[in-house]
This record gives sequence, C-alpha cells and structure tokens, in this order.
Amino acid sequence: MQKIRLFTPGPTMVSPESMLAMAQPLDHHRTAGFRDDLKQCVELLQYVYQTGTTPYVITGSGTAAMEAAMLGCCKPDAKTLVCHAGKFAERWRDILVRFKLPHVEFEKEYGLGFKADEVAAKLKEHGDIKAVIFVHSETSTAAVSDAQGIAKVCRDNGALCLVDGITSIGAIPFKMDEWGIDVGVTGSQKAMMLPPGLGIVALSDRAWEAIDSHQAPTYYNDLKAYRKSMEKFDTPYTPNNQMVTGLKFTLNQIKTFGIENVWAKTAKLAKATRAAVEALGLKVFAKDPVDSVTAVEVPAGVDGPKWRKEMRAMYGIHCAGGQGHIKDTIIRLNHMGYVDEVDTVGAIAAMEWTLAAQGYKFEPGAGSGAFGRVIQGA
Amino acid sequence: MQKIRLFTPGPTMVSPESMLAMAQPLDHHRTAGFRDDLKQCVELLQYVYQTGTTPYVITGSGTAAMEAAMLGCCKPDAKTLVCHAGKFAERWRDILVRFKLPHVEFEKEYGLGFKADEVAAKLKEHGDIKAVIFVHSETSTAAVSDAQGIAKVCRDNGALCLVDGITSIGAIPFKMDEWGIDVGVTGSQKAMMLPPGLGIVALSDRAWEAIDSHQAPTYYNDLKAYRKSMEKFDTPYTPNNQMVTGLKFTLNQIKTFGIENVWAKTAKLAKATRAAVEALGLKVFAKDPVDSVTAVEVPAGVDGPKWRKEMRAMYGIHCAGGQGHIKDTIIRLNHMGYVDEVDTVGAIAAMEWTLAAQGYKFEPGAGSGAFGRVIQGA
Repeated sequence: MQKIRLFTPGPTMVSPESMLAMAQPLDHHRTAGFRDDLKQCVELLQYVYQTGTTPYVITGSGTAAMEAAMLGCCKPDAKTLVCHAGKFAERWRDILVRFKLPHVEFEKEYGLGFKADEVAAKLKEHGDIKAVIFVHSETSTAAVSDAQGIAKVCRDNGALCLVDGITSIGAIPFKMDEWGIDVGVTGSQKAMMLPPGLGIVALSDRAWEAIDSHQAPTYYNDLKAYRKSMEKFDTPYTPNNQMVTGLKFTLNQIKTFGIENVWAKTAKLAKATRAAVEALGLKVFAKDPVDSVTAVEVPAGVDGPKWRKEMRAMYGIHCAGGQGHIKDTIIRLNHMGYVDEVDTVGAIAAMEWTLAAQGYKFEPGAGSGAFGRVIQGA
Repeated sequence: MQKIRLFTPGPTMVSPESMLAMAQPLDHHRTAGFRDDLKQCVELLQYVYQTGTTPYVITGSGTAAMEAAMLGCCKPDAKTLVCHAGKFAERWRDILVRFKLPHVEFEKEYGLGFKADEVAAKLKEHGDIKAVIFVHSETSTAAVSDAQGIAKVCRDNGALCLVDGITSIGAIPFKMDEWGIDVGVTGSQKAMMLPPGLGIVALSDRAWEAIDSHQAPTYYNDLKAYRKSMEKFDTPYTPNNQMVTGLKFTLNQIKTFGIENVWAKTAKLAKATRAAVEALGLKVFAKDPVDSVTAVEVPAGVDGPKWRKEMRAMYGIHCAGGQGHIKDTIIRLNHMGYVDEVDTVGAIAAMEWTLAAQGYKFEPGAGSGAFGRVIQGA
C-alpha cells in the first residue's frame, strides 16, 4: 500500500500513462512504424534541444552517449579541457584518462559552477585546447554552469563545446544552436520522464568535422554508424524500441505543454524549494544552484542517511543523498519532469516531519508556508 | 484491429503479462528492492546458463555485451580465431578489426555451422591462438555450431572460448560450466522474451584472468566496473531497472517451466516447422539447421520481399528476411520464447496462403498437416 514518490534526480517520476504507452504490444524495429516513431522522436528532440541538428538515440545510459560524443570529438592529437566540480564531470575526466586522450583539468570545489571568463582564462593559458567539456547541471552537487557563456568562449577560441546536459536538457533553458553548443547529451530518465535505458546525443557540423577526421576507438558507441543508419531512421544495433515508443509519448507531452513552460515550471519549483529550505533554517549546498535539482545540507545534529531513510520509510518520499565525499552531508530533491507543486509541498512536509523526529528545531509549517508563497507568486 | 505476431528471431513475442510487469510504478535503482531484483536475475540466469559464474546485465544491446567480453578477453598481445559464416559473426570480426586486435579469420559459407575438428585443425595450424569466437546459433542463417565440441577443443588447446549465445542461451541446450565455455553472451529480446535493451554476459575464471591481465580499451563496456558494482548487486552506470523487473519476471517463468522443457519445446517447434517446409516442397536454407530459428529458401518464381510483406499485411505474421547477400532469398521463423504450436501452425498456414497467391504449387494444407504430425508425435 505504500506510495513511493521518486524525488531522485533520475530516474525521475514516470507517469502511469507513459508506463502503459510502453506496455503496448511490441512490434519489430525494422518496420515503417518504428522508423516513423524514431523520425518523430528526432523532430521532437530537435524542439527540446532547440536545434536543427539530428539527435541520436543510443540504447544505453547517458554515460554511453557521452562516451560516444567524447571518443568522436576528443582526438588523440588534440587537447581537451575538462571542467569538473562533481562526480559526473569526474567521470568524463576518467573517460579521457581511460583512453589516454590529452587533456587539461580545470577543477573547482563541489557546489560551484563554471563561468565563461574562467574558461576563457584557461583557454588563453592553454592555447592548444580543441575541445571543452563541462556539465551544465552537475547532478551530484546541484550546481549550474554558464552554458551559454562558455559556449560563446569556446566558439571564439575555436574549441568544440561538449555539454553534459543530462539534467539540464528539457529542464532548464538550453538552446543548442543559438548558444553555439557542439554536443548536447542527455538520458531518458531525467527531464524526458522515462525509465533509464536511452542516451541521447546531438552534434553540430563542427562536431561532425572532428568525428569524420579520425576513427573513434569504439564500436558500439561509434557515432558514424548511428549517422549512417539514421539516413533511413534506423539504428545500427537492435534498439530498445519499447522505450522509443515511450520517448515519442513523453516528448509529445513536452511539446504540448511547451518547452518554455517546462523551464518555467522547473524554475518555480526550485525557487519555492529554496525558499522552504531557507525558512527551515537549512542551507542550499550549491553556491551556484541549478533549477533542475536542489541539494540541501544536512544540518548539524541530524543524521543524513537516517533522515533520507525515514522520509522514504514513513512517507514514501525518496530523495537522493550526495555522492563522493558529500554522500551523507546533503540530500537532493528533483524538480525535473513529471513532478508538480503538490508533490513537492508533500516532500517539504515530509522533510519537516522527519527533521522534527531527529530533534531539529524550526517553526512547524515554515517550509511548506514559504514554498506556497513562492508558488502563489507572493 | 490487426493482430501482429512477431516471428522474427528477435525481438520475439513478449507476453502482455511481461509488458504489464514492466509497467509497474518505477522505483529507484539504488534501493534494496533493485539489488534484490538483480540478485534474483543473477541466480535465475545462472540456472538458464547452467553456470556457477556470475552473469552481468548491461544496459545496451547484445552487441554492447559482446564488445565488453571481446575487449576484455581478446588482448592486443594475443591472437583470436574468429569463426564466421554469417552477419553476426562478421560483426565480431569487425570489432576485432576496429580495435586492431590480432586475429585469424575462419570463414565458411553461409548456412554452415562450425565443427569441433575444424576448429581443432585451425588451432593446430595457428599455435598462438589464445581465444576463439564463434556464434552458437547464427541468427542470420539459422545455422548451429557445435558449442560443446568447440569448447572442449578450446580448453584442450588453452584458448578461451567466447560464445555468441544471443539466439541459443535459453532456447537450445547450453551448459556453460559442463561444456567449459568461458564467455556466454545473450540479449533480452530473444529467448528471454523481453523487448531489446539489455545485454547479458557470463564469464569463467579463465576469462577473468585474461580481463584482469590488462586494461580493456573501453569505459562504458568495461567488465571490471560491472564486477566491482556487482559485489553489492549494483551497476556502475544507471541501469534500465524497468527491464530488470521484466527480466526477473520472464526468468521466473522459464524456471517454473524448466529449462529442459524450454529446450524441448523449441526443438519440437523447429522439427515440426522443418517438416512443414519439406512437405511444401520448400528447402531449409541452413545445412546445419539450428532449432531456435528456421530459415526457409524462397522458391523459384516467388518474390521473397513480397511474400514476407503479404504475410504481415494480410495475416499479421511478421517473419524476418535474410541479411547480407541472402537478404531476399530466405525468410526466417522464430521458435524461441513465448511462441507455441498454435502460433506456429498459423504462421505455416499464412505461408501457404501467401505462396499460393504468388502461384507456387503445392497441396493445400500439406505444411500444416506435416507440422501437426510432428507436434502430435506421429
């Protein structure tokens, strides 16, 4: 009988409608029906990405899609700048290390985002950088980087701009073409409101130039194979066509709602959550907070893992903890996708009740009250 | 209103019960519930693989799982024998080529399987071969290789035995430990009766020795990362947990039915189908036919693509054509998984009706009759 509410920043909540859309009888993937589904997904993803380029759908996680993009764009004879201030950016650094790809690390403290002028300074310092990788919304710290500004700096310096948009694309403003982004990667289980299982990557003409200038050291994640198959709206290896059906369904929901309205909804939930956090005397962890997910510091005297555990056990609110050295010192609440004000005020209330149970002092209802005032536009 | 019956050798038919099992509310993957699901899948896969080793579940297609196994076991300082007589084995050859891994090709005509003595001769000819790759059931030609015999030859010669069991494991006898197989790969959309989206790979201690002796040139498909996470029944990257739920469901069905009964059912459908083919004056394409799928030669005077198209358009029977140079000259009928005698006699009848429409001469009902006699044990 327990109702579980996923407040994790991926998988996010999936609607019963989406689950049932994917429960339809399965057809074969080498059919006109599948090609039409994939074509529609491409067009709808173009809308979500704000791009005229072709987004590719890879059966795998966001990491598979990011590996595909990196092995294509980060060449063994060129240098990549990898900006990291969190677990996911560190993974992209690890991929560069694994493949022995020349790179420069730009490390910042967890909770910080990257700014355009900082990246510009690094590019000036290292004149031979041909690609820049950063995480738009660093899911592990809930911090945002200036994607628009960094993309411009990259373009001005002739470097490719690779963006991990896994928890930004479809959640917060992301304008691939207008901003001049070369690579945008996301996954199915975030703003796309689906289970995990699909990685998505869109690439600019400049990115394709890099990809076409060498052979990437991969087979499964070789984007050239995906491009060739996409000429017929097909895939090089057997795709998860059940999830492509789901993707068509959820992307149509986003299109109907309007991407600007999605961005506004996400921002409002984030703003209201931050207000609630402050009203409870708690602190938002990130110094550059992103709107797709909020990280809250576990206050002194409160046991973080116990707090999260009780929220789920008693009220079905499943928040994420942190990752790495901040594993037990933050909790994270998702604002992406199929989640609304009522869900979120419930999560705030459950946070209050479980904090109270651990003896944390605050005015009961202060969080929910502050949350509601933002929602009501006061 | 049209009923589509998938007779393709992957995706095979998925039951409504399985689809609905996967339509249950999605939970997070970093939970005791998911770890328990994955643990159960591992145990059930051990039963299906007939192994005490640990099968790993990768979010991706069978190609991803095969790439993972190959990059771990086929080392740059060792030679691999790749046996190919069909499209899928050619793909494994292509992976060796892509990664510049030393290899010897053993090519045979499409429709043939590989025998133990032939592989033994090749191993004698090339004394430095450390790994052998072959496809147990070559899906593209519907031919079977002698997995048990080849595995013994490999073991006797100190070479690792890598088996593409994508359309054999869970369909026809496959005894990983008893036969001494080092690597067995399969995918979710075949005998596992699920949509595409998961690749599965099990590895012997000998395989792990090879993997541990070097760093495979991959990140997403690095098996060491999977092994480390599996210590806690976890995965290194976000898994498709919706499909793991489905896998637990279908593997339990297989366990309940009994793997030997599954093998017997598959074999009987294949035998009956081959009898029907013969009774209609048609020919089975493979000289070494496998039981998991039957390839039928398109007879003279019949247009293959039109034949398949009409079977689907008029009767909802979706057969596969061929691949490569036999694309239009064979059709393939699946016998794996959630398909039974009644489904298959319907496919045979639809074959008859659509052949008749193209003017092919035969005794009406001869196919269904011969099929039924085998089913009834006559």
